[in-house]
Amino acid sequence: MAHHPPAAGRPRTFGTATRGETVPTVPPASTETAVDVTALLERGRNLATPVLRAAVDRLAPPMDTVAAYHFGWIDAAGNPADGDGGKAVRPALAVLSAEVTGAAPETGVPGAVAVELVHNFSLLHDDLMDGDEQRRHRDTVWKVHGPAQAILVGDALFALANEVLLELGTVEAGRATRRLTCATRALIDGQAQDISYEHRESVSVEECLEMEGNKTGALLACASSIGAVLGGADDATADALERYGYHLGLAFQAVDDLLGIWGDPDATGKQTWSDLRQRKKSLPVVAALAAGGPASERLGEILAADAKSSDFENFSEEEFAARAALIEEAGGREWTAEEARRQHTIAISALDAVGMPDRVRAAFTALADFVVVRKR
Amino acid sequence: MAHHPPAAGRPRTFGTATRGETVPTVPPASTETAVDVTALLERGRNLATPVLRAAVDRLAPPMDTVAAYHFGWIDAAGNPADGDGGKAVRPALAVLSAEVTGAAPETGVPGAVAVELVHNFSLLHDDLMDGDEQRRHRDTVWKVHGPAQAILVGDALFALANEVLLELGTVEAGRATRRLTCATRALIDGQAQDISYEHRESVSVEECLEMEGNKTGALLACASSIGAVLGGADDATADALERYGYHLGLAFQAVDDLLGIWGDPDATGKQTWSDLRQRKKSLPVVAALAAGGPASERLGEILAADAKSSDFENFSEEEFAARAALIEEAGGREWTAEEARRQHTIAISALDAVGMPDRVRAAFTALADFVVVRKR
Repeated sequence: MAHHPPAAGRPRTFGTATRGETVPTVPPASTETAVDVTALLERGRNLATPVLRAAVDRLAPPMDTVAAYHFGWIDAAGNPADGDGGKAVRPALAVLSAEVTGAAPETGVPGAVAVELVHNFSLLHDDLMDGDEQRRHRDTVWKVHGPAQAILVGDALFALANEVLLELGTVEAGRATRRLTCATRALIDGQAQDISYEHRESVSVEECLEMEGNKTGALLACASSIGAVLGGADDATADALERYGYHLGLAFQAVDDLLGIWGDPDATGKQTWSDLRQRKKSLPVVAALAAGGPASERLGEILAADAKSSDFENFSEEEFAARAALIEEAGGREWTAEEARRQHTIAISALDAVGMPDRVRAAFTALADFVVVRKR
Repeated sequence: MAHHPPAAGRPRTFGTATRGETVPTVPPASTETAVDVTALLERGRNLATPVLRAAVDRLAPPMDTVAAYHFGWIDAAGNPADGDGGKAVRPALAVLSAEVTGAAPETGVPGAVAVELVHNFSLLHDDLMDGDEQRRHRDTVWKVHGPAQAILVGDALFALANEVLLELGTVEAGRATRRLTCATRALIDGQAQDISYEHRESVSVEECLEMEGNKTGALLACASSIGAVLGGADDATADALERYGYHLGLAFQAVDDLLGIWGDPDATGKQTWSDLRQRKKSLPVVAALAAGGPASERLGEILAADAKSSDFENFSEEEFAARAALIEEAGGREWTAEEARRQHTIAISALDAVGMPDRVRAAFTALADFVVVRKR
């Protein structure tokens, strides 16, 4: 890794930012071409959602109902709901990437749907493995419908992802499925790492970045290239778009890790100090621990004691705030914000290797900017 | 369904066969061409196993170890083991089906490996969903390595199955993956039906057959055609071979259901009256309940009482034997044996639609004969 954790004793170059403040980021790069990010996200959502719903409708009962609950289309009682479908960055990227090849955005739709199916397959299984009871402000599937349905419907969504692509019957669909399969394997590797890290005393910054690359980078890489692959792009183009998406994923995750500690609960929908409550060894934490110096050492002692504490769940707001302050003092917050900027820059420069219309490139840039300035 | 459960009051045309006796079947059809079934099974196993092991070795730790335990290659302590790899009918069929097109049996190997990976993905997940603690005479993966590893490694094997096929990079591989995906969806549908039937008071013969077609027929169908697809067979040929495999799967399952009640524990490795102990609504049971007549009605009353009994697990050998005798008296045993013969006949006749060397056809026939006369 070219980019090291903050050195011990390094002067704090950042202010006294508090929870809820916007994460410091680059200014939007695309000032000359105005891009409406909201419209880009909406286009992806509008194109992908009907096809996604039709795919999920193919599932045999009761799996169709369980999946519809997971996606937020119905509530636990089976009544229609207007759930939070998330930011929909992946579908926006998938349909945009089709335009790299000069194809219509619609060409990317089966790719957008397949990526969303794989993403949600992994959420269903990860929530069960991790014992997470809440997702998108609602009870998780295993909580509502039981572990067997979470396993089964996850499996079904994974199979459906391949089906949606392969039924196109084209050579391009085969190539897209192969890339999606690689991304899925990385996703599974990342979850395996995440589980094993939980039981370990210390995790290095490199290990954390590798895990985040697998859990977040790989599928965003696939989302950013799959439309182009379906549009007939060659491997070099697809690889460059994957690089864009992979590094964008790492930027996305760095921001997520910042929001997981300092995010505004009203915006994120999570508890205050959410990742600290879960003892997550996220980037700010591992960077702070790796930094050395008095604050880093004190943090290490406190977290080691926390790991053995039986009273951890009853900790007060102030106790978590004190830990967050130590992470910040040791440089973990600034290092992670800098890491987000660094990964954002690598993502943008990966686009240089791909010939595409200016409008499409501006849209990729605007989506990258959006990912690093978001508050949720 | 053209074939109805035994009618009420129909005279028993079968003898007083007891547990451990060979299930009555058709005589081997291929008397004119001597086929060594043991050699066919061994060929499939010998060709597929090294490639399967190499694929599993690609998994990141600890998933590689967990998978190796599941396949019986190592024991729970990590020492090399020589586990029971099963009968290996699927790999034998997959490599044989390549020869339909005049290709070498090796052409079918990636298909054989992919089918085995999907089969074992489903075993890992099904054992966890069903709470089964034993498989192939050993503790199941979730018992030894925990539920999270069972989910994760199952997911990884499913992804690996697609990878093994799609990395061939051919149009045929795309077609093979699409067929495998359909089979996997059917497998998942079958497990969903199996789970929902457990909670139901009664299951019809048709529902039971549909479930068994999904859980057993679909993947055997894929195994019987995937080598041919990889060898360039057209869709009509692949469809006919799938029909052979699907009906062979139903014959296989009918025999399995007979062995699940009347099988010899020394041969099956299961407890006596295994399926009865698990309250499985298998074919002999549902056929007996559907038959009508005094024995059928008495059986229905007893099983309804059993379902509410809190003492069921302490039932004696004699109590299970009495239930098995009633199932037999109501005609459930003979109906299921007849169903195995009927499905065997349909499977063999599906081969008529496919031009293939006599030697290959004789081998398909011999494997079908083997499936219905096996004792385990």
